Amino acid sequence: MIRSNTIDMTHGSGGRAMAQLIDELFIHYFDNDLLRQGNDQASFSISKGRMSISTDGHVISPLFFSGGDIGSLSVHGTLNDVSMSGAQPLYLSAGFIIEEGFPLVDLERIVKSMAEASATARVPIITGDTKVVERGKGDGVFITTTAVGMIPEGVNISGDRAAPGDAIIISGNIGDHGIAILSSRENLEFETTIQSDSAALHEMIEEMVKAVPEIHCLRDPTRGGVATTLNELAQQSSVGMQIRESSIPINSAVSAACELLGLDPLYVANEGKLICISHPDDAPALLSLMQKHPLGSNAAIIGEVVEDPYKFVQMETVLGGSRVIDWLAGEQLPRIC
Amino acid sequence: MIRSNTIDMTHGSGGRAMAQLIDELFIHYFDNDLLRQGNDQASFSISKGRMSISTDGHVISPLFFSGGDIGSLSVHGTLNDVSMSGAQPLYLSAGFIIEEGFPLVDLERIVKSMAEASATARVPIITGDTKVVERGKGDGVFITTTAVGMIPEGVNISGDRAAPGDAIIISGNIGDHGIAILSSRENLEFETTIQSDSAALHEMIEEMVKAVPEIHCLRDPTRGGVATTLNELAQQSSVGMQIRESSIPINSAVSAACELLGLDPLYVANEGKLICISHPDDAPALLSLMQKHPLGSNAAIIGEVVEDPYKFVQMETVLGGSRVIDWLAGEQLPRIC
Repeated sequence: MIRSNTIDMTHGSGGRAMAQLIDELFIHYFDNDLLRQGNDQASFSISKGRMSISTDGHVISPLFFSGGDIGSLSVHGTLNDVSMSGAQPLYLSAGFIIEEGFPLVDLERIVKSMAEASATARVPIITGDTKVVERGKGDGVFITTTAVGMIPEGVNISGDRAAPGDAIIISGNIGDHGIAILSSRENLEFETTIQSDSAALHEMIEEMVKAVPEIHCLRDPTRGGVATTLNELAQQSSVGMQIRESSIPINSAVSAACELLGLDPLYVANEGKLICISHPDDAPALLSLMQKHPLGSNAAIIGEVVEDPYKFVQMETVLGGSRVIDWLAGEQLPRIC
Repeated sequence: MIRSNTIDMTHGSGGRAMAQLIDELFIHYFDNDLLRQGNDQASFSISKGRMSISTDGHVISPLFFSGGDIGSLSVHGTLNDVSMSGAQPLYLSAGFIIEEGFPLVDLERIVKSMAEASATARVPIITGDTKVVERGKGDGVFITTTAVGMIPEGVNISGDRAAPGDAIIISGNIGDHGIAILSSRENLEFETTIQSDSAALHEMIEEMVKAVPEIHCLRDPTRGGVATTLNELAQQSSVGMQIRESSIPINSAVSAACELLGLDPLYVANEGKLICISHPDDAPALLSLMQKHPLGSNAAIIGEVVEDPYKFVQMETVLGGSRVIDWLAGEQLPRIC
């Protein structure tokens, strides 16, 4: 058994201590045949087609928060990125950068949580890497995950495919993740029961893509929130967006917390939501399918794509006015994912 | 143009500053159609077969050293890991974790070096991620790269395939990388002209695999050096190894530096070398092929695989004695890759 209580520099040496850490922690919890091969890479069979790959570094602080931790988040975040192409994820890899002195009990809790998220998602972690940096040169643990998946034939989802007239659908309440993280940070004086929405969306996406292979865009509104994601899509597709504030689903506790903190929920991060843009004729079917799924029960059509050479995102407010929703400028909530 | 001189927290926000950093630095230098799609994932066509994936975090200190930098290393290291399966790498992804206050000029130098390494290797960087952590919570920049590649049909290279009688070949001089890094560290008083051997080996491997599809094992002796890699392979294959000290190629300057520093070169890291284990009948052809390649000019057969229930690696010393070459215990050179 691993005898030390904390990570020390030998755990990143490439030598015996590292081999033991890999065996007793990573292989023990992630347990699968490909990982157990014990090579510096993993090999698997694939069929001809289109593959999607995505990489995401996770530096969230704190490491443990209401509704998740850096382990589950590092699985969900990357699975979501790869599945926003319409792909079904197949495999994950994980690279750990651990700070010397990090408690092994915390690392075990994180690895266990990753293993559970990976098992629930049915996407195994098949290869990885461990590095250790000196005390004060890192911050507990950073996890960079990569996922690969296969895109079903006939599916062509991309941020540049939004067309005027298209419907904009969101899969549920906005801002839960960001507010949960804020409430977990020690220096904040409010507490809420708000949990992060961190979840893997690929099973819902599988149903959506089966029903409507012609979906134009999918993207998860993480850092920068819904506002920034809509601006990215408007930019890529050279269109404008017109959304209605009254249609945007939000938990009243999140809304209240945002008001208290002076935050605009449109810029607050989500980790288990997606924005779907489709031909308006396809929108009702997609909406009803999402609403039937546990991860999309509050899905709503929040607006439409419009022609606009200036590529503005505009919102009709609840008071009846209209305002431009710009990109996030500056930093709203550091290290939110 | 990017106006700030250093990385600040806004560059990891997900908002406008991050989009600008990605456009003006990452897309500018890595430039390729897949990356330019601007989605959170990249999609590409593949044919049916066996795929290999590998992930490596890079935390090397210092960031710039004789013979390379963290940028080129993060390309070479991961390409090598994936190609040690016999695969030809196809694509790379890169996740950056940058410390607030890091000079943009240094980041640009690193990104440029990655771009050059990727172009030379003909393996494009097609997707990535950027995170920023507060000053004192990182150490300049950490880069986690992932590579995917396809394994040619009929090739089955794995660490568990070494068999008694097999020849052990090394592709060249040992210890260059580790000693180059040590000499680059400011607090050391010696200077050498030794350069890191950091290089991508997949083109040499392509030739080797074409000539001898039946290669049993390939592994790059990075952290922990040749000694640790041979022990890993002995463990995986349940065999012993018998090597000859007099056959191991080493640069005399590296040998002298090791003596001065009290280091055993067998434990010093390499970043552009491989160990190849094959049937003895295949060894002469592999050796001559490696010796003709610029990255294998000093290749040598250093010993053979033997039966040994204890899975020991033993070395016949230049003085005619024999000693057991154990796994690296403890930490020899922290943050060597």
